[in-house]
This record gives sequence, C-alpha cells and structure tokens, in this order.
Amino acid sequence: MLSKSQISFIRSLHQKKYRKEQGLFLVEGLKSITEFFASSYVIDALYLTDPAAAKVLKIPHKINVTEIGTADLQRISALQTPQDALAVLRIPEKLPVKKASLKNSFTLVLDGVQDPGNLGTIIRTADWFGFSRIICSNDTVEAWNPKTVQATMGSLARITIDYTELPELLEGADLPVYGTLLDGDSIFETNWTNEGLIVLGSEGRGISEAVKPHISRAITIPRFGAAESLNVAVAAAICCTEIRRTQKK
Amino acid sequence: MLSKSQISFIRSLHQKKYRKEQGLFLVEGLKSITEFFASSYVIDALYLTDPAAAKVLKIPHKINVTEIGTADLQRISALQTPQDALAVLRIPEKLPVKKASLKNSFTLVLDGVQDPGNLGTIIRTADWFGFSRIICSNDTVEAWNPKTVQATMGSLARITIDYTELPELLEGADLPVYGTLLDGDSIFETNWTNEGLIVLGSEGRGISEAVKPHISRAITIPRFGAAESLNVAVAAAICCTEIRRTQKK
Repeated sequence: MLSKSQISFIRSLHQKKYRKEQGLFLVEGLKSITEFFASSYVIDALYLTDPAAAKVLKIPHKINVTEIGTADLQRISALQTPQDALAVLRIPEKLPVKKASLKNSFTLVLDGVQDPGNLGTIIRTADWFGFSRIICSNDTVEAWNPKTVQATMGSLARITIDYTELPELLEGADLPVYGTLLDGDSIFETNWTNEGLIVLGSEGRGISEAVKPHISRAITIPRFGAAESLNVAVAAAICCTEIRRTQKK
Repeated sequence: MLSKSQISFIRSLHQKKYRKEQGLFLVEGLKSITEFFASSYVIDALYLTDPAAAKVLKIPHKINVTEIGTADLQRISALQTPQDALAVLRIPEKLPVKKASLKNSFTLVLDGVQDPGNLGTIIRTADWFGFSRIICSNDTVEAWNPKTVQATMGSLARITIDYTELPELLEGADLPVYGTLLDGDSIFETNWTNEGLIVLGSEGRGISEAVKPHISRAITIPRFGAAESLNVAVAAAICCTEIRRTQKK
C-alpha cells in the first residue's frame, strides 16, 4: 500500500508546475512503459497491479518496482480508466538545438500547438513515418503532459523532443523551411528536397508572425470542400505522408 | 436570466441518455452555430451573451434567440471555457441507408470508433476534402456528443451522418469496399476507382471480424518507423488525401 505522502507526491505530477519543479513525469500502462525500457529515458519508479506481468516483461533490474492494489493505482492515475501500471520518469535535460544536427533529414517544427492530444498524435504519427525528432516553440504544450504522453501510445520513447525559440533557430537555417500556410503551393506539387524543417502553426492562429518571415517554402494542403481549416495533427500527418510517398520513388 | 428548470434541461443534454430521449443536442460558439443556419438542421433555441453579435449575424427569424449572462452560459455549457453562445438543435431522424445513394462517390465508413474527438476530427477532415457523407456502425460514438460537435468546428452542419448495421449495408454492396488493414496493398499504389466505401476500424481492435469479410480491397498506410499503429483520424485523413490526390490527375 502506498503512503499518503507517496500518493500526493505522484498526484502532484499531474500538474505542470510540479512536473517542472521535480523534473519528473508519468507514463501509464505497461504497454507504453515497456517502450521506454530501451530508450534514453530514466525510469525512477514503476508501480504495477499485476506481479505476474512483471515477470513476463523483463523489467531492467535497475528499475524500482512496487506492487500496488487497483485502489492505489486509481489514486495516483491521471486517467479516467487507469490501466495496469504507472511509471515515474525523468524529464530529459533541455539542451540547445545544434543547427548542424538538422541536416540530411526532415524535422517537424511546432509553432505554438496548444492541445496536448494533438501533440501526442503528432509524436505518434512522426514515429510511424520514421521521423525521429520534433522541435517545439517554447509556447507549445509540454510533451510531458499526461494527455500528450497517453496519445503518443509509447512513441514518445523514440522521438527526440526539443523546446526552443523558433525565430532564433530558423534564422539563417541552412536548409529549406517548409511551412503550412493558406496561400502556399499545393503539397501535391511540392518539390521536397532530401532535408528540411516543416513548420506547423497553432490550432487558433496558425504560424506566428515572428516565424512567418523564416518560411522559405510555403505549402498548402488543397481543399476540395468547405471546412475552414484542418486539425493540426491531421495537417502534420498529411505532410509526413507526402514526404515519404515522394521519397519512395 | 434562465430559470433553474431551463438550466437543468439544457445541462441534461450533456448526457447521451437525455439527448436520445429528447432528440436534441448542443452546439457551442457562434462561429460553429452559424454554419448550421444554411443546413437542414432545425435550431430550437439560441442563447447568446453578446446581443451586438446577433445583429451582425443575420440570425434567421424563425430561431428563438435569448440573451443570457456569462454566468448562465457557464452553467449550461459543456465546455471548460464557454464561448459566446449555445444552441439547442434537433438530432436528425435516423433513416435507412439506401445502397443506391452510395454510387458515384466515396463514403467514409466507421466501424466502432470510440473517441468523440476522433469522430469530430474525421467529420472536419471529410468536409475539407469534399466528402459529404459518413456512415457509422451503431456502436460508433454518437456524432451529437458535445466533444464530437466541438471537434468538427462547424463541419457537422455539412456532412450527412448515418448510423446502421455495417455487415447488412456491406453485404452485396455494388461498389469497391476499401478497408485499412495491416496486410493490405500500399495506399500509395492503390488503384482508386471513382466510387467506393472506405472502412476504418476502432481505436482498439481495428476493423471487426463481422465486417472484415466484406472488405474487397485491403489497403495499408506504409510504415517507415516503429509506431504500432496510427490514430484513426490520421488514417482517415491520409485516405482522403490519397483519393483526392490521385483523382486530380
């Protein structure tokens, strides 16, 4: 059984303020948690309700495992329907983004995405299409939000997430900067090079005024109907699809 | 000011049980509500906090408009951050799907999609790409759920949503039935005809066993990375994109 203070400590990590203070975040569900075993993430603690599952899973010895009851899991979980386990992981150290590291690949760049579920879906989609990195503006929702983590379905373990000031990063970027705007070239006719940054704007206002001047290739997803805009995770997925489809040739 | 009974009546429509009982649902935000003015939906009542906005909007005379305070809007809203207005609309009558009506176009078919946000995003995406109809299995989340309505961003007004038993509908369907499965042909090499049904499965289990035998053309979104699956709204968007891209030629 968990003590009151253990429960309140873990519950505090549901909130951004305490995640930041402690440098810790939560991953729920054994399926997702196991994806982090082979990653560079440090797992500080693992709480699970089914000890039999632990044996099957080959949990690395260094991880501190605690068996708990379903009532305790309910108390510490951020989910409406808690799964079978919850882990406490360390938030990776924030490092400066080296421009040279962006060469020879495609990187998604998110400019102010607000919805945690959208960010999680973008991380999952990037992982499906073999993109290994996402760079977020400092005002993008944090990747350690429980709703984001949940929506990544474990893909967070494989995608490097950086937070930085975008204008600074894009200033003099020595590679194409694609950006989804309303008046760009059709993505069906875009000449994707073999490297670049793909900038996607926030749900409400799109790409910010400070970032717009740095877009060197404006692209647009052609519209055939009447909706005013697309969900940002959908737009990101369509860009990833087009890059992979055209590179296949 | 709204009476207690008015508030409790509108609040009851946050729940599926009462929406079904009353045949009514809610749309929030003037921007979304105005999309329904020119649709076949019947708006029973419109509550708004800014009377000046009402003048600008050309609200049809037949709509019953009530000015309310922000405190009352807060009480009747299903949103965490209420907007400027809330409308009560009638749920369209459930009609049988006529097979002949499916000819000469593409229709999305959802087999057990559970997440209201995903359904809303699919409706919005369909509207962007000019698809006018979505057919849902009876166990798909209802389109009148406030989270679904919210995620459609007004597109619900333009897309016909049917609920039916899918095996019955697909039995002897006289047009191609595409379905996203793990072992299908790459969608990049799919020979899209000029009509068809595109079946997408639920978040957890994919396309159901009862529906699988009716898929005549299994399709797969090629994977380049390590994620186990894609979000269903993302998969739907990629199918819509590919259909429109290849039809353009």
